[in-house]
Amino acid sequence: MARGNARTVPTQDRAPTVQQSINKVGIEGLRTSIKVMRDGELFTYLSKIDILVDLSENKKGIHMSRLVESINESITLKAGRTKTSLETLGAEVLMELTRRHPFKSAEITISTTLVLERSTPISKRPTYESYDVVAKVTWSENTLRKYLETSVIGNTLCPHSLEVTGGKAHIQRCELKLGFDVKIDEDLLFEKLIEICELSFSSPTFTVLKTVDEAHLVEQMFANPMFVEDVSRHCLDRVLGLGIEGSVLIKATSFESIHKHDAVAEIRRHLKKNKSGSIDVL
Amino acid sequence: MARGNARTVPTQDRAPTVQQSINKVGIEGLRTSIKVMRDGELFTYLSKIDILVDLSENKKGIHMSRLVESINESITLKAGRTKTSLETLGAEVLMELTRRHPFKSAEITISTTLVLERSTPISKRPTYESYDVVAKVTWSENTLRKYLETSVIGNTLCPHSLEVTGGKAHIQRCELKLGFDVKIDEDLLFEKLIEICELSFSSPTFTVLKTVDEAHLVEQMFANPMFVEDVSRHCLDRVLGLGIEGSVLIKATSFESIHKHDAVAEIRRHLKKNKSGSIDVL
Amino acid sequence: MARGNARTVPTQDRAPTVQQSINKVGIEGLRTSIKVMRDGELFTYLSKIDILVDLSENKKGIHMSRLVESINESITLKAGRTKTSLETLGAEVLMELTRRHPFKSAEITISTTLVLERSTPISKRPTYESYDVVAKVTWSENTLRKYLETSVIGNTLCPHSLEVTGGKAHIQRCELKLGFDVKIDEDLLFEKLIEICELSFSSPTFTVLKTVDEAHLVEQMFANPMFVEDVSRHCLDRVLGLGIEGSVLIKATSFESIHKHDAVAEIRRHLKKNKSGSIDVL
Amino acid sequence: MARGNARTVPTQDRAPTVQQSINKVGIEGLRTSIKVMRDGELFTYLSKIDILVDLSENKKGIHMSRLVESINESITLKAGRTKTSLETLGAEVLMELTRRHPFKSAEITISTTLVLERSTPISKRPTYESYDVVAKVTWSENTLRKYLETSVIGNTLCPHSLEVTGGKAHIQRCELKLGFDVKIDEDLLFEKLIEICELSFSSPTFTVLKTVDEAHLVEQMFANPMFVEDVSRHCLDRVLGLGIEGSVLIKATSFESIHKHDAVAEIRRHLKKNKSGSIDVL
Repeated sequence: MARGNARTVPTQDRAPTVQQSINKVGIEGLRTSIKVMRDGELFTYLSKIDILVDLSENKKGIHMSRLVESINESITLKAGRTKTSLETLGAEVLMELTRRHPFKSAEITISTTLVLERSTPISKRPTYESYDVVAKVTWSENTLRKYLETSVIGNTLCPHSLEVTGGKAHIQRCELKLGFDVKIDEDLLFEKLIEICELSFSSPTFTVLKTVDEAHLVEQMFANPMFVEDVSRHCLDRVLGLGIEGSVLIKATSFESIHKHDAVAEIRRHLKKNKSGSIDVL
Repeated sequence: MARGNARTVPTQDRAPTVQQSINKVGIEGLRTSIKVMRDGELFTYLSKIDILVDLSENKKGIHMSRLVESINESITLKAGRTKTSLETLGAEVLMELTRRHPFKSAEITISTTLVLERSTPISKRPTYESYDVVAKVTWSENTLRKYLETSVIGNTLCPHSLEVTGGKAHIQRCELKLGFDVKIDEDLLFEKLIEICELSFSSPTFTVLKTVDEAHLVEQMFANPMFVEDVSRHCLDRVLGLGIEGSVLIKATSFESIHKHDAVAEIRRHLKKNKSGSIDVL
Repeated sequence: MARGNARTVPTQDRAPTVQQSINKVGIEGLRTSIKVMRDGELFTYLSKIDILVDLSENKKGIHMSRLVESINESITLKAGRTKTSLETLGAEVLMELTRRHPFKSAEITISTTLVLERSTPISKRPTYESYDVVAKVTWSENTLRKYLETSVIGNTLCPHSLEVTGGKAHIQRCELKLGFDVKIDEDLLFEKLIEICELSFSSPTFTVLKTVDEAHLVEQMFANPMFVEDVSRHCLDRVLGLGIEGSVLIKATSFESIHKHDAVAEIRRHLKKNKSGSIDVL
Repeated sequence: MARGNARTVPTQDRAPTVQQSINKVGIEGLRTSIKVMRDGELFTYLSKIDILVDLSENKKGIHMSRLVESINESITLKAGRTKTSLETLGAEVLMELTRRHPFKSAEITISTTLVLERSTPISKRPTYESYDVVAKVTWSENTLRKYLETSVIGNTLCPHSLEVTGGKAHIQRCELKLGFDVKIDEDLLFEKLIEICELSFSSPTFTVLKTVDEAHLVEQMFANPMFVEDVSRHCLDRVLGLGIEGSVLIKATSFESIHKHDAVAEIRRHLKKNKSGSIDVL
């Protein structure tokens, strides 16, 4: 682009009219296909990617194509460079970006859906269950961190109505979102977060259900009445049990069957290891 | 715009390279505020409007600003020109458009939400319930027609699970969409369509519910188990009872509490008056 | 489920209260992972699936779990049963379903995103471009058909404003949707539909663009001004050139940069082969 | 509900199994119609409302119906209790709630759309422009604050491409979101935030545009090239000019016409009045 004196400096690198830094500049909604090799098996994730960096007060713009090139450089599964998770891949993109563009802070967010094989509870048939996940890697103050989030579909059976109506109660679909921001090398898997969520509902949900499975789930709901408040608290309780430092976000949303609106409960906590090795809740 | 020989003909009115007619050209997603006067009371509807006309094979484009001007001319509540419904307003926009732009067929779709005052079933408290509605007016073969559609939130209690589990059952939020395409002067109100929908669920829903109301609704659900198939059929049955000619679209969507996916049932029928004055279902 | 006299007949198989047939019953929004083997390469598609069948007037409900089982039976990549496209997989699911559930008409809709490798126009760098696609297979009157649809992102440069403003013009992102309903064994690929769409804009779009590529695309836009009407017509013209029978749906949506609303053009045509082997447009 | 010894304490007021406080519990997605009287004119806003309170570690649940009743109590336009803005109405709902339910922190978020009358820039025709707005009122540490946010549609013309291509450039729709969290009695109007946004683009947008207006806007774009970074900085510069303390959030999103993804720039700042009365940026 620099084709003469007048344009020695690319437009992006000149001083802006308003000399203010920008917290996050970049691209959102880039969709691509990501390959991850885990335990010898290749997984392909159709993903949406957002990638953002800070911009200092004396530069007019960032070079956006370099962000995309850093992604393209890393998503190609090259020999000897196999990534084992979405978050290690995100970290690699940010490291690749350090060689191409200046920044003090950066983040990459990869959103996709995991499909896991399960068995139905009683008939033991194979079923495939889907879970929306977000893997975000941040670089700030020379430190990489990862944020893993999953959204799981379950249900709530209202304890208040069960008591008042004498064994009858309204039930509804409930979505539980659990996000955990931890050290980049923390041993934390999406599968563990999904398991915690599925245990926090009145009952989990399945894609295939034969009559015996359906009956089992309905019995489980009635044995396990829960407000949306209970779902969020039980989820927190299990996260505390992991013994991991970090920041946790929990949001349960109940698509009420007796109302047109939703009921929600949201918990945020900072978890810190104390001297004895156990977790303090802040 | 015509400022000399070279541009005597506006770009839009020239011949296109590919001489094919276009079924629908126009604008989508125009949002504006609409005023309707009914029974002496003024209602204001924040709306999304789509307006589309056909285009002949020998014109390059339509004059889009004239579509918007026809809307603006009609939505302003002028003395002596009070509109009494969204659909009469839609018809007026199309009539205004005939004075501004040529077309053989045209349609305007107004999407908004009605908020109706209700009482809770037992405690008799005031509650405000919302219903998404669509009023579409079409002009084709020199005939105006209207299509009224409403989406109502209720619930389903699974009859199969009620039977198998001996009095327990899964329940979920259910949305019922009912659309009816009828003659422009047919005596049909959104309120009637909403009423039909609300009667087709295991129970209706309310925004405010005190404990006695909630207990009442739960009892009603258990007394009234329904598959999503039942919801759509009961809705059709009540539409037939109106004795009105036209095309009906019914779609019930149940946001399953035991699955991650939705269960749906869709019915389409053409209703025609026979010689004896009753309705034939085609 | 049939555990005694009282329940010899499952709830679903009993007579409904309102004895009306239902056009489409089934499930929507099932998300799963689909594997397709093409030209020796394995592709994995994270997909959303809808599957629907008709229901006769004398059955209360369908057996929904059998729909999901038909999907699960087919998506698993078994030895010797490799599927080569989404639509052959869809057809297989419907055939599997005939062995499990009665129906007169059925349809399965698989929605996913293709990610294709491209090169940037001038700098020839690798870039990955994403395209939303829908593969729908229908069974009706003992005939299988397929409907392939793709949505492609390009842009429009307004010809009217280019002329009036003397070489300047407004430009915006444009989405072009092209759907084609054809015989199940018609030789039609998503890649061909995508190519047609990309050639119908003022210019195509790319995920990576270096300065020379960007300059090239901007020049291409100004050399190729197009109304949203032009985009839809050019697309139709290229579809006619395929010489294939079927029903075509084209919709161009321009996210106007001078308006808050969108401009759209929609064309529907039935294409039929005549005796001389060429295509008649109906 | 308390109808005897066994149920003296409502379910919600009992101790939960997991004794953790919850940051936010309540309802989301309640839709209703809100009336505001301003300068003698009555405005009706179809709105979506979220209302949330904290819950202490020793209560199992909140009483959700009381949240809705507080809304219903306040939205009714009673004589002598006229509200003059969405945010004073939000504050009134929270004050009403203090009489019905205990909480330490609470928030209500009202989302709606303003439709303002404008004139087209040259032809001076009337046009109605829509702006999504959010009015949020928070109660925390015995202090009420308000957060006003607006989203405005404009456009960006790329300065880099304008320079490289010699007078040609790509243009696209751009959305600018501006939110400002300030003291409850701060003199700040949505109209002022909208004005700031509209001045921060390459050009504003209008619903009606005659040819002379369109030409004027296109000239304005080319005279005013802007990266998405420039849009966010110019917006911040104008917010600083207001001389108001508070926390500002700015996010510009450019729906790129040469890419399938979006370009974004986000700025967050805390503005604090210093001793000399001018604003320090933190």
